[in-house]
Amino acid sequence: MPGFSVILVEPQLGENIGMCARAMANFGLDDLRLVNPRDGWPQDKAVSAAANAAYVIERVKLYSNLQSAISDCHRVYATSARERAQMKQVLSPKQALHEAFSASQHGQTIGILFGRERVGLHNDEISYADAIITFPVNPNCPSLNIAQAVLLMGYEWFQQSSIDTPALQISQKPATREAVLSFLTELETALDQAGFYPPDKRDTMQLNMRDMILRHNPDAQTIQTMRGALKALKRQQ
Amino acid sequence: MPGFSVILVEPQLGENIGMCARAMANFGLDDLRLVNPRDGWPQDKAVSAAANAAYVIERVKLYSNLQSAISDCHRVYATSARERAQMKQVLSPKQALHEAFSASQHGQTIGILFGRERVGLHNDEISYADAIITFPVNPNCPSLNIAQAVLLMGYEWFQQSSIDTPALQISQKPATREAVLSFLTELETALDQAGFYPPDKRDTMQLNMRDMILRHNPDAQTIQTMRGALKALKRQQ
Repeated sequence: MPGFSVILVEPQLGENIGMCARAMANFGLDDLRLVNPRDGWPQDKAVSAAANAAYVIERVKLYSNLQSAISDCHRVYATSARERAQMKQVLSPKQALHEAFSASQHGQTIGILFGRERVGLHNDEISYADAIITFPVNPNCPSLNIAQAVLLMGYEWFQQSSIDTPALQISQKPATREAVLSFLTELETALDQAGFYPPDKRDTMQLNMRDMILRHNPDAQTIQTMRGALKALKRQQ
Repeated sequence: MPGFSVILVEPQLGENIGMCARAMANFGLDDLRLVNPRDGWPQDKAVSAAANAAYVIERVKLYSNLQSAISDCHRVYATSARERAQMKQVLSPKQALHEAFSASQHGQTIGILFGRERVGLHNDEISYADAIITFPVNPNCPSLNIAQAVLLMGYEWFQQSSIDTPALQISQKPATREAVLSFLTELETALDQAGFYPPDKRDTMQLNMRDMILRHNPDAQTIQTMRGALKALKRQQ
């Protein structure tokens, strides 16, 4: 059974990383990626908390930034305890993993982002995702720790894998996240040089631009064509 | 919203009791019943682990045997990591909580039993339940701690209670076809001037470009931003 990648962004406690590994193993997941763990890596506490899921810890992949951690993903989801003001689709775990599981059946690589203990993900990090997943919880007591969040996502994934619903039809080959990000960088640079952004609105506009492009879930051919078009427009300058 | 009663049978660690209380609070549950907690009651560790779910700990009901803990229940389920040789129905969390939630809507009281850390429930205890709930987990790594088991049950209960609420959807205002076509014309003209199209492939590439943009069903904001970006890129020429 294919799994999704669990991507922990700047996790703080080794024990929590180990608990995430355990929750993953409960549901047959084994691709754990860490972006800048606060206390470095490897960590003994992670190994001991993982207990019999130590094999997940041994296979951990370490990254220095979020972009490289998601570069081979076709679809990326950001988990968030609260709704964000961003122009991004907000899904329940069930909705998101139904869609993600279908995509994975078609060979797509799925990454799910989990933020730091307490403060979660920054808006800039969320902007790299295709959609936000929020957990349906009691609004008076909404806080889940990251291992619990991973557990619920693993549980829903496992549920999907035992449901016989026909998969989504996906005919276009999706762009890898690396292709999208590298196009976005080229576009942002070109627009910077062209004086497109008013200085005080630059950051917001860049976030919105990322959201806008990711929201349309571009396929590989679209990204390639857009790169070609941008290159032609720049050549003239 | 009605809840179910969480009945912990001879729980060993106060910290786990507190974590169960937290998981309950996450999903709006507040009736926690303890049968003979190993280290007595009350316990400071339970209060501190419960954090902002301390109100659940304060309301805990204490029992000296299982029979009295379930005496007011109409339906009782026993959670179990493994299937038992008993002549009892075995349900998934989803199946059980679907049935339990309906019963609760008809005024029935629901109790769910969770066993001791490691050894779980004895067969004698399970015999008091109407059905067994087992968790769909990786058979090579099936162990969930009791707080995780409570979390998953709370999650499924909450799902049952919110099944008909539509998920949040971002209502993007779609672009009018006129706006899309007029952008396409501008883009095609700019790409013509930039020498993007090889002459013998021009018509095909224009068709593909149109298809590509329309396939992504762009919203009004996206088209407006793309027009602005194109204008900025052209200004430089």
